[in-house]
Amino acid sequence: MIITSNQFSEMEKHYRTTLINSLPGYKTLQMVGTISEDGITNLGLFNSVFHVGANPPLLGMVFRPDGPDHDTLKNIESVGYYTMNNVLPEWYQQAHQASARYPTEISEFDLCGFKKLYTKGFKAPFIQESTIRIGLELRDTIDVEINNTTIVIGEITHILLDDALIGPDGYVDHIQAKTVTVAGLDSYFTTNPLGRLAYAKPNQQPGVLNGTEIS
Amino acid sequence: MIITSNQFSEMEKHYRTTLINSLPGYKTLQMVGTISEDGITNLGLFNSVFHVGANPPLLGMVFRPDGPDHDTLKNIESVGYYTMNNVLPEWYQQAHQASARYPTEISEFDLCGFKKLYTKGFKAPFIQESTIRIGLELRDTIDVEINNTTIVIGEITHILLDDALIGPDGYVDHIQAKTVTVAGLDSYFTTNPLGRLAYAKPNQQPGVLNGTEIS
Repeated sequence: MIITSNQFSEMEKHYRTTLINSLPGYKTLQMVGTISEDGITNLGLFNSVFHVGANPPLLGMVFRPDGPDHDTLKNIESVGYYTMNNVLPEWYQQAHQASARYPTEISEFDLCGFKKLYTKGFKAPFIQESTIRIGLELRDTIDVEINNTTIVIGEITHILLDDALIGPDGYVDHIQAKTVTVAGLDSYFTTNPLGRLAYAKPNQQPGVLNGTEIS
Repeated sequence: MIITSNQFSEMEKHYRTTLINSLPGYKTLQMVGTISEDGITNLGLFNSVFHVGANPPLLGMVFRPDGPDHDTLKNIESVGYYTMNNVLPEWYQQAHQASARYPTEISEFDLCGFKKLYTKGFKAPFIQESTIRIGLELRDTIDVEINNTTIVIGEITHILLDDALIGPDGYVDHIQAKTVTVAGLDSYFTTNPLGRLAYAKPNQQPGVLNGTEIS
């Protein structure tokens, strides 16, 4: 089947949103923790996080102009610090609940049942229940003119996790960390390792560092 | 364990790259197909694709200034069209191989063993072996000043897939499509459904649309 541009405009709005959001596949799932200047904490669920660079260590994320994530963006811009926390299978439903449109004065930490974790010298709250927690400092805000979204780029300044999750080469083990992934806006998944491959070079078949060989 | 900024600069380069790339978890994995003005096709493997909007349907992706993906960016900018194609477990190793630095005059389609698929009115090649294929038209190129990367935003103009992969509400089934996900630069995974949840509303526990209940 081929679907082309003129068909998108004819689609029912929710159908199109679901189709386009689920089309590209699995995404990075993060609970973003912030705090307002007045000290009200906030949690939001995001699936638009992407790698921007390793040196300096930068992550990007997208904010909709009218999204339920308004408090998160406002807090990031006013305070300058925010956290990303992975989602675990045991509480993915509570994490999903944090995507509801709660009033500004309500903290999703309390409402969805998460414990706040703070570290010295960092203003924004981490999630105690997560196994991989990333602290970021706002570095850039880019307006995307085509659809009025905002790309926020932050520099990773803190990583809070169990030593055992980092391998000798720096690789973070998300199977052991029990990280959940998402497709579309509402479908959650755990994963099975296929294999880890050596750096690809021309004229050489990729070596399997570990994992199952698929024949 | 807490890792902070000053420790990043002391890390061995490959260790830091592996750590930062694998830290945020699972990512959208796409083989990007392009063609040069001279008609030379190119395939590149990307894990920086992110959702920008559903109306118009927009996807973003990040290019490094010195990356092996130089031909892909050049082709997108000169021709204006490109494709994203999902990766399947049966040939994820060949997909990984497309990330090697091949000379411009060599097509990764031929070298890594993929069949080109064209559709009327669209210049860039899709991958026959993929189950979900997205055709995009370049809409915006954003320079990220902090680290000299480039964010490319394209509008989805074509979707090529089996009808059976799209549910009645527009949801694309990546389990049935056998889409692979990636963590870091080199670790590949299949997935298991945890559950699909209803749109979250305040004062209401999320409903499970389908999937396994986790208690």
